[in-house]
Amino acid sequence: MARTRLTPERESELYAAVLDLLREVGYDGLTMDAVAARTRSSKATLYRQWGSKPELVVTALRHNKPVSLGEVDTGSLRGDFHAVLSRTDDCQMEKDAALMRGLSHAVHNNPDLLQALRDLLIEPELTGLETLLRRALDRGELRPDNPALKYVSHMLIGAFAARQLVEDRAVDRAFLTDYVDSVILPALGI
Amino acid sequence: MARTRLTPERESELYAAVLDLLREVGYDGLTMDAVAARTRSSKATLYRQWGSKPELVVTALRHNKPVSLGEVDTGSLRGDFHAVLSRTDDCQMEKDAALMRGLSHAVHNNPDLLQALRDLLIEPELTGLETLLRRALDRGELRPDNPALKYVSHMLIGAFAARQLVEDRAVDRAFLTDYVDSVILPALGI
Repeated sequence: MARTRLTPERESELYAAVLDLLREVGYDGLTMDAVAARTRSSKATLYRQWGSKPELVVTALRHNKPVSLGEVDTGSLRGDFHAVLSRTDDCQMEKDAALMRGLSHAVHNNPDLLQALRDLLIEPELTGLETLLRRALDRGELRPDNPALKYVSHMLIGAFAARQLVEDRAVDRAFLTDYVDSVILPALGI
Repeated sequence: MARTRLTPERESELYAAVLDLLREVGYDGLTMDAVAARTRSSKATLYRQWGSKPELVVTALRHNKPVSLGEVDTGSLRGDFHAVLSRTDDCQMEKDAALMRGLSHAVHNNPDLLQALRDLLIEPELTGLETLLRRALDRGELRPDNPALKYVSHMLIGAFAARQLVEDRAVDRAFLTDYVDSVILPALGI
């Protein structure tokens, strides 16, 4: 499909508007009409540029790349977790949580969307997490047969999901830091 | 509002149909038309009996009460967790997970629905969990200053949420049993 050239600024602005709508109304509620109105584009332009709603949403998600966990290297697993958290912005965490909520039902009925979400938001974080854990194993901080090792991502995702459900509050840095120190490191025997 | 008498069987059948629809299309996608068609009722009857969609959904949820965790008492925390899991049905767990997915976006925009979900599905489980933990404290199995104590529900909810997101599989008894033994008991120092 031939694409008209958009300026990078215009493209970023358009993807940001798609993600904002996704957070507000969810995937099922997001219409091409609403995207057109919000971005002051014509629907014809949107369809010509992106083909379909799933393609537009996936491209917008892909554009909004997360920071990689694996780049941090302080010499201890506790230090790595704390360094990652100190670089994290409370406002960005709330925005990511809103994105996950907006997508959570739709992904179950839409395998392409689930795949995009995995590739773009979940896999990069898991790969970064594996890098941190691999270095802790190499340093001898962690034993390779520790049974909690395969569940670190579950513990982390639980912190996000339960904070919403049980406490009805967004995660923030202070909460995640206490959770890492109280749950994740002790379960790993550190 | 005066309610026509429905037989308890007919009422249960109707609530079950509402929960099935909720799992299939989510709260936002659930229409009174679909409920009427699925249950072979008239829409006028549904509105006369329940007033509105949130009331109908909340009443259907309230009708479907969960089993209480707190009734189990084996003499050890490990034994209690294993006993609860041995009474749990894999199929029922998948149905509850589908219900949570169907509601997760809607609850954020609908405080009445969130309150009903908390009262009916989350609070009874948390109260049961507290009973198990309180008895473990009384027996001296757990120390009251254990920092992981306040996060047991987060660890449990994480098992459900992450299993879906990371592995795209429903939780089952074997998975939850391994998670309890590998994560929850070690984090609690047991």
